[in-house]
Amino acid sequence: MTNAWPDLSGRLENGRHILPVRIYFEDTDFSGVVYHGSYVRFLERGRTEFIRMLGIGHDALDKGEHSGDGEGLAFTVRRMALEFNRPARIDDIVEVVTYPGSVGGARIVLKQAIRRGSEILVTADVTVALINREGQPRRLPEAMRAALGADEMT
Amino acid sequence: MTNAWPDLSGRLENGRHILPVRIYFEDTDFSGVVYHGSYVRFLERGRTEFIRMLGIGHDALDKGEHSGDGEGLAFTVRRMALEFNRPARIDDIVEVVTYPGSVGGARIVLKQAIRRGSEILVTADVTVALINREGQPRRLPEAMRAALGADEMT
Amino acid sequence: MTNAWPDLSGRLENGRHILPVRIYFEDTDFSGVVYHGSYVRFLERGRTEFIRMLGIGHDALDKGEHSGDGEGLAFTVRRMALEFNRPARIDDIVEVVTYPGSVGGARIVLKQAIRRGSEILVTADVTVALINREGQPRRLPEAMRAALGADEMT
Amino acid sequence: MTNAWPDLSGRLENGRHILPVRIYFEDTDFSGVVYHGSYVRFLERGRTEFIRMLGIGHDALDKGEHSGDGEGLAFTVRRMALEFNRPARIDDIVEVVTYPGSVGGARIVLKQAIRRGSEILVTADVTVALINREGQPRRLPEAMRAALGADEMT
Repeated sequence: MTNAWPDLSGRLENGRHILPVRIYFEDTDFSGVVYHGSYVRFLERGRTEFIRMLGIGHDALDKGEHSGDGEGLAFTVRRMALEFNRPARIDDIVEVVTYPGSVGGARIVLKQAIRRGSEILVTADVTVALINREGQPRRLPEAMRAALGADEMT
Repeated sequence: MTNAWPDLSGRLENGRHILPVRIYFEDTDFSGVVYHGSYVRFLERGRTEFIRMLGIGHDALDKGEHSGDGEGLAFTVRRMALEFNRPARIDDIVEVVTYPGSVGGARIVLKQAIRRGSEILVTADVTVALINREGQPRRLPEAMRAALGADEMT
Repeated sequence: MTNAWPDLSGRLENGRHILPVRIYFEDTDFSGVVYHGSYVRFLERGRTEFIRMLGIGHDALDKGEHSGDGEGLAFTVRRMALEFNRPARIDDIVEVVTYPGSVGGARIVLKQAIRRGSEILVTADVTVALINREGQPRRLPEAMRAALGADEMT
Repeated sequence: MTNAWPDLSGRLENGRHILPVRIYFEDTDFSGVVYHGSYVRFLERGRTEFIRMLGIGHDALDKGEHSGDGEGLAFTVRRMALEFNRPARIDDIVEVVTYPGSVGGARIVLKQAIRRGSEILVTADVTVALINREGQPRRLPEAMRAALGADEMT
């Protein structure tokens, strides 16, 4: 299948999802480089496109299309461990790399990095969970668990 | 009545609402001063505190407490005209000034400015409307219209 | 010339620059749709890519490569007039349209819109100026003025 | 000394710095609660006010007033470990709690939390370092190290 929006949706390479991101004014701060909180936004974009490539969009989740009973669901971040090694700068194109670490019944740990060419700028381990509108945890859709290589019995 | 959070809620002076805002890293960009889009966020904070001082909170609106029939409502911005005269800088405390221009049945024009001491940094005319969850316009609550000095027949 | 990053850099159509933008969590607010201040960020992305296509990058400007005397320069926004017609939503791909209005010696008015398919969501008139590090206005580079179709004598 | 801006600058309680933060539209996302990346911004505000209370402002650092040789310096984040327990919501006032963990020659680990009343919403361990404009690490000012209780020999 051709990808209508190759940059916007990213691509898979060796089982890892790669999303290019351009650095704009909005992403930088007065120290001259990218604001540390901006990388957190870029990582979320990478996770969203990775999950979309598995067939799951946030809007469809919210409308209940991925829960057996039509309940509206959303992903939420439970934990993040971030290391900031080098800064990105205005006009750079960086790439957000995302791939699954461990997959449980209601949680996934995603491994992420932000790189510029071969330089690793930021690394992150991110634990996400699926919750309903009251914030209660919900089991990940089976199609998603299968795509992520989860064991059946987990 | 004493104000439990004088800076966070702002104050009224001669019928104008004044909200102090501190400039942080997140608000600046690599040019060394505040990013133009950050002023748009500060203006919204000023409008929110001004409207809260009139007795209307966003959460209560969303829960239907200000509509006769319990319908959830939210303010939305229809128009903004902004002039950027001088920049704010990291560590500055600026003040957002907000007061009503004209008040119609479903729209208000608010006059706003961002100043640092006596210097006017930014001015804005902002038209806001009240809408329901489907985006349809809804009449402003009478208590709000009265507080804003709207004519009865408008 | 092929475009190495077709989505990230955008494209020209009939003299108008078109930049696709995906809507993420970060762009939305609790009312369920895109936060009004996010469109201001999208418009800046569009202007940046439009100006880059004219051969001018922010980093090179900052390093003095576009001023005769090596002075570091940056674009700054002087005025914006915005109309918000309809909201964008999570997962949408919208397009930022940018083309020149009038071009003066030190200022350009850019006409912009944000559309989703054929629906116009937001329109904007944006006046930008070129300034040095002290905030003083500087003449636009001739190459840029020529590319924008400015009269020689302006 | 009275605090001219009690909410904006925060206060010390039992050696911990407490900064109140109001939740606005800009901080929330379409899931109905606060966007996870917004807490990262709130934590930075808390660190900034904590460091300011120790006598160090970002603007003065940038202008070289805290380095022996006038070199411009800035704090940068090296690591963050975040746990997100419960969400904040529109109109909430939350408090950012900041206190020093370990202090080295060029790095500080700050312990932080975001709470709403007695509920802990987010916890964070944040390692910050002082760098010059080329990104090279610089020793923390002695006054700052002393205020933070660092051993002389570290």
